[in-house]
Amino acid sequence: MSRILRAGATLGVALVGIAATAEDPPLRGYTAESSKVQREWEAKFRAIPDPARIREMLRRLADRPNHLGSPHQKQNAEYLRDQFRSWGWQAEIEEFHVLFPTPKERLLEMVAPTKFVARLDEPVLKEDPSSSQKAEQLPTYNSYSGDGDVTAPLVYVNYGTPADYEILEQRGISVKGAIVIARYGGSWRGIKPKVAYERGAVGCIIYSDPRDDGYAQGETYPVGPWRPKDGVQRGSVMDMPVYPGDPTTPGTGSTPGAQRLSRENATTIMKIPVLPISYADAQPLLAAMTGPVAPDAWRGALPITYRIGPGPARVRLKLSFNWTITPLYNVIAKIPGSTLPDEWVVRGNHMDGWVNGAQDPLSGLTAELEEARAMGELLKQGWKPRRTIVYAAWDGEEHGLIGSTEWAETHAKELQAKAVMYLNTDGNGRGYLNAEGSHYLENLVNSVAREVEDPETKQTVWKRWQAAAIARGDARIKSEARGGRSDLRIGALGSGSDYTPFIQHLGLPTLNMGFGGEGGGGIYHSIYDTFTWYTRFADTTLTYGRALAQVAGSIVMRTANADVLPYQFEHLAETARGYATELKALRDTEAARIAEVNRLHDEGVYALTTDPWAPLAPPKREALAPYLEFGRLDNALDSLSRAASRYERAQATATAANLVSIALNPLNALLRTADQEMLLPDGLPRRPWFKHSLYAPGLYTGYGVKTMPGVREAIDLHDWKLANEQILNAASALDREAALIHKAANLLDRRVVP
Amino acid sequence: MSRILRAGATLGVALVGIAATAEDPPLRGYTAESSKVQREWEAKFRAIPDPARIREMLRRLADRPNHLGSPHQKQNAEYLRDQFRSWGWQAEIEEFHVLFPTPKERLLEMVAPTKFVARLDEPVLKEDPSSSQKAEQLPTYNSYSGDGDVTAPLVYVNYGTPADYEILEQRGISVKGAIVIARYGGSWRGIKPKVAYERGAVGCIIYSDPRDDGYAQGETYPVGPWRPKDGVQRGSVMDMPVYPGDPTTPGTGSTPGAQRLSRENATTIMKIPVLPISYADAQPLLAAMTGPVAPDAWRGALPITYRIGPGPARVRLKLSFNWTITPLYNVIAKIPGSTLPDEWVVRGNHMDGWVNGAQDPLSGLTAELEEARAMGELLKQGWKPRRTIVYAAWDGEEHGLIGSTEWAETHAKELQAKAVMYLNTDGNGRGYLNAEGSHYLENLVNSVAREVEDPETKQTVWKRWQAAAIARGDARIKSEARGGRSDLRIGALGSGSDYTPFIQHLGLPTLNMGFGGEGGGGIYHSIYDTFTWYTRFADTTLTYGRALAQVAGSIVMRTANADVLPYQFEHLAETARGYATELKALRDTEAARIAEVNRLHDEGVYALTTDPWAPLAPPKREALAPYLEFGRLDNALDSLSRAASRYERAQATATAANLVSIALNPLNALLRTADQEMLLPDGLPRRPWFKHSLYAPGLYTGYGVKTMPGVREAIDLHDWKLANEQILNAASALDREAALIHKAANLLDRRVVP
Repeated sequence: MSRILRAGATLGVALVGIAATAEDPPLRGYTAESSKVQREWEAKFRAIPDPARIREMLRRLADRPNHLGSPHQKQNAEYLRDQFRSWGWQAEIEEFHVLFPTPKERLLEMVAPTKFVARLDEPVLKEDPSSSQKAEQLPTYNSYSGDGDVTAPLVYVNYGTPADYEILEQRGISVKGAIVIARYGGSWRGIKPKVAYERGAVGCIIYSDPRDDGYAQGETYPVGPWRPKDGVQRGSVMDMPVYPGDPTTPGTGSTPGAQRLSRENATTIMKIPVLPISYADAQPLLAAMTGPVAPDAWRGALPITYRIGPGPARVRLKLSFNWTITPLYNVIAKIPGSTLPDEWVVRGNHMDGWVNGAQDPLSGLTAELEEARAMGELLKQGWKPRRTIVYAAWDGEEHGLIGSTEWAETHAKELQAKAVMYLNTDGNGRGYLNAEGSHYLENLVNSVAREVEDPETKQTVWKRWQAAAIARGDARIKSEARGGRSDLRIGALGSGSDYTPFIQHLGLPTLNMGFGGEGGGGIYHSIYDTFTWYTRFADTTLTYGRALAQVAGSIVMRTANADVLPYQFEHLAETARGYATELKALRDTEAARIAEVNRLHDEGVYALTTDPWAPLAPPKREALAPYLEFGRLDNALDSLSRAASRYERAQATATAANLVSIALNPLNALLRTADQEMLLPDGLPRRPWFKHSLYAPGLYTGYGVKTMPGVREAIDLHDWKLANEQILNAASALDREAALIHKAANLLDRRVVP
Repeated sequence: MSRILRAGATLGVALVGIAATAEDPPLRGYTAESSKVQREWEAKFRAIPDPARIREMLRRLADRPNHLGSPHQKQNAEYLRDQFRSWGWQAEIEEFHVLFPTPKERLLEMVAPTKFVARLDEPVLKEDPSSSQKAEQLPTYNSYSGDGDVTAPLVYVNYGTPADYEILEQRGISVKGAIVIARYGGSWRGIKPKVAYERGAVGCIIYSDPRDDGYAQGETYPVGPWRPKDGVQRGSVMDMPVYPGDPTTPGTGSTPGAQRLSRENATTIMKIPVLPISYADAQPLLAAMTGPVAPDAWRGALPITYRIGPGPARVRLKLSFNWTITPLYNVIAKIPGSTLPDEWVVRGNHMDGWVNGAQDPLSGLTAELEEARAMGELLKQGWKPRRTIVYAAWDGEEHGLIGSTEWAETHAKELQAKAVMYLNTDGNGRGYLNAEGSHYLENLVNSVAREVEDPETKQTVWKRWQAAAIARGDARIKSEARGGRSDLRIGALGSGSDYTPFIQHLGLPTLNMGFGGEGGGGIYHSIYDTFTWYTRFADTTLTYGRALAQVAGSIVMRTANADVLPYQFEHLAETARGYATELKALRDTEAARIAEVNRLHDEGVYALTTDPWAPLAPPKREALAPYLEFGRLDNALDSLSRAASRYERAQATATAANLVSIALNPLNALLRTADQEMLLPDGLPRRPWFKHSLYAPGLYTGYGVKTMPGVREAIDLHDWKLANEQILNAASALDREAALIHKAANLLDRRVVP
């Protein structure tokens, strides 16, 4: 086929010359010619990032504590703005005013059976100079804990997940009126006090058990990388699965004059006092407990018998906070697009740490900055991105994704109209590329990963990613990675970093990525997350910092210059079908579990298998689960598959044509709303801020993703009526998506029907 | 059908009257009439055992240390002989002279990087008077350790199984010239020094980690039942999977004048020094080690980072022993059979402890003794068992099943000619009946378990066993227990108690059983296994002692009086087929594993997934596994199934006949050789003492059973040629078994063909 066709006069039009060779097929969304040019620019780009510069930037930014509201954070923001400008970017600081609690009073003491006052402080280490910056460090606390002064018996609740409370119920133990002590892990930290509060607890202590995060894992800092006995994991306990950002301005930006909810009406602030402690502080409390011995899976690595209580250990937990409206400084830098300035490729990483934040977030931020510097170099060489590139450094991430959320809420309309991608990173390490996001971007991530060198093996990042999938994946993943599927799978986005407002609230095409999987450590959210630690134990050569800059920057550039946005919908359709298959299996599993519990009751098995010396209450009988109405969803999935295949065929035809003209603007305008079409108009049950029909953090997992969350969480709750409603909502979302993709395929096909 | 038939005049003949009612079907192997009589005697029997008497006997026998060679053991033997006689039994002490090492010198010290001398002593507890009998206690040691004085760096080898050494190999760590430190668990203790020695280690320390056996499990003694910090698990390290019993008299009895191997030629004595220690003694050694951090599954509950070494901890291990020929006292008691005196029902439990041995073995022995007393009562009431009943109390079990093995070897011919069953117990606890043994006895165990009351639930022992199978079994076990199979499954016999010589060397019909599964504790083979401990933490009311006497005694009585031995071969046939299915799956799994390893090499996956900071050597390439020749075995399994079904039909017909006469003596004589037919003429590869084709302890598991061991261990070793040979051997054994069962069915059928 060889034809020339013209699109309508009012539409943006590109002449697309295709002259692919076998060894160098054009990039997706590019003509052979534009592909060649793009490859050259990308190659130039990837040669620029420099580990020495990343190292120096890391040292500088991690120099002092840089949390939200700290002087060094403001200095860093100003410095970054100036750096961006020096690299040829437009850059501004965008300020928000947000509710940010810092401790006024922190007391934890055991009052019975013996006295013990918790230290609540991480000691200075002579081996790590940053650890001595006491005056500037935030103390150990959980932001958005409630104020409170409570004295009550302790109950040990393991990780404090809903499943852990089933174990307590079996043993007849209630946390009503108690203070729970939970270990970090098993769920996001904010779930622990939330679940405890819902069950009547009056306070919550969270500690780092050495089994998960301490000497059991390896030598502790400063000898090794792991958490020392007095190390504490700070962290926000804001109820982010309901909505992130400033608790007093849900859905709108916390601009200086914004209308605010009262603190009492801000549902994401915890109602009970919550405090994180070290394992040195936890040990006397846990050792003083009696009651049933904790089940095997609940036992940590302290040299004690873990027992559940309640009591006789009684503790007093007294916390009060300064609830201050604090200025927050996002840095927003831009390179305006040369031909499509109203299409934005947005890239972000947060810049605030809990203390010095070398690993979290600066190891990721410094990669982003090196990308920006490199692109500045390209600009000097005449590079002109077609679309606008927006690079952001977010403030206040640690306390609830605040900087990104407030910015996304403030610019919601503009972002939904313009953004073609949000690409997030947040910290980096050695090893393997991990990527997650909108599944029509899977192919894009794979294609870039095939072109970047892995620092340790000198093979491509993709090769190593593939090897990990083969070595560690389940049978399906392994077989796909061995050639059964054209691309490696990326994960689905839950929460835990700044991508959340972009994908789950606004429905923008979104990716999150970083390297990791090698090494380890226990300095997360402590005063030991420093330049010293990072350059001794993590990406010591900063070569993975360079690799991250190469991957992320290439994705940005390839998206910014594509003729047609490089989306591949077949992966999306197949992934969505996989979620539906999982949900059917989940229904069946839950139905079988309910039926089995009832049967075991009928058979008297529970009564016959309980030890009278340590009796266990059986799980409750429950009404049998109905079959669910998956028909509409299955129809929608078929539509989506057909649409995706049709779009691929149309794309292939366009690519195979020697010279074609395509109405690019309306096509790209359609494509960039691909996630928006999948938003639920009313959001998810009990949390309307979260609108995506495919991806959300779990209401009771916190960071962990729940895919098709409306349906999945209804099944989790055994709310079968709600599940059927949510199936219809998900089906409608996928129907809309299928329609969008059909429309896009029509636009591609119009080249043959002028 | 209703006929009268007579068997040949020279054969023992019984008139069999069958008049079963629907509500009371005759016992298997009984006529309706003899069944009724039997049921009455069993009911009388089960009313007699008395927890108070069991308690008093336990107190008396556990009064002082009673190990092989101790004065109290001899006193107990004499006391038991006299008790049996007082109950109306014939009873004698049968003496053997056996090689028994006791410590002359024990020293364990760390010489670098710091000095530490291990305590090697369990302290007296004021809460437990028995713990103070220091002068009579055996010290903490492993019997049949080698003599030696070695100083070498330590290597931590986890449980010290062959699989653990694969982990070491991956990390490039050799134990050549080192002293290994292994924790108890994961295999029988004797495997640890054996595997270490085979890999070049010069010494072996075995300790009880608190994660498996200490504070992580629960409060420690005397507060709770678990192992205290200075508690030590003594134990034999004789290489029993090669042959048990006196190492200098393999295959023959250690009678006073027996021919003996020299110690050097006794292959079951360890070649290197081996010493068990407490976790208090282990902690300084483990804490002094460096090298790679142990993988997650290797980490115990000590408050340290578990590291593998080698060194820098260097220890000196100096052990020497008195290798003394020591008199051993078995007690053998008999009730001569009234009509079939040359058919023996043998019942045993050992009487020697490592120290006071209240739980191990006396909680089992006292049940056996209470059975014997009850049978004595029945004798007074006129009960006359048809077959001879032999009750044994074995000495020297703890050091290598010595008393039972020497007795079985001495009386091998007589036992193979006369024994219709060996029923073993060894310690007892609260909870569920666990039974294992010859699978044609499965139905017998089930039928008795249906008639004994469980002390805690007041339902039958069988009901509770069934409930446990439903609650904890896999899908198959669960479905079978719910009615998919007529009987609950019993396990296969490995080793670890006195049944081994009877089933695996002589091929006698064998059972082993006990109650357990509730409670727990850590006093095994320590000075704290006392009357005080047992009556505080185990079967405190001794009602499970009574239940064990009721179950075991009923099985003995029912076997002793049966017209036809109550064997059911369909269970055997089905179980053997299951083993073959497992072996095919094992071959396939190993074949797939080899192919996968080779493929991962080819794909370069190992090189791409190793962390250069902690590189792991990949598993070695290996020749692909051939398919094995299972045809003969499958044919034999079919023959066995047909024979078993035919026997069942013949039995049913005989039972349905109103009055038949059966040639019982030849039939029973055939039946009692059912296991002997399955012996391998040359025994197992590398261990001819073990002759059974279906059951053996694993050469590298020690206690854990390997079913169809010749084939299974050849597959484990990837010795495919040997596997094919062993398949033929196993097939021949099953062919012989099928022939025997056909012959037995013929004898049953002869009632219609006089």
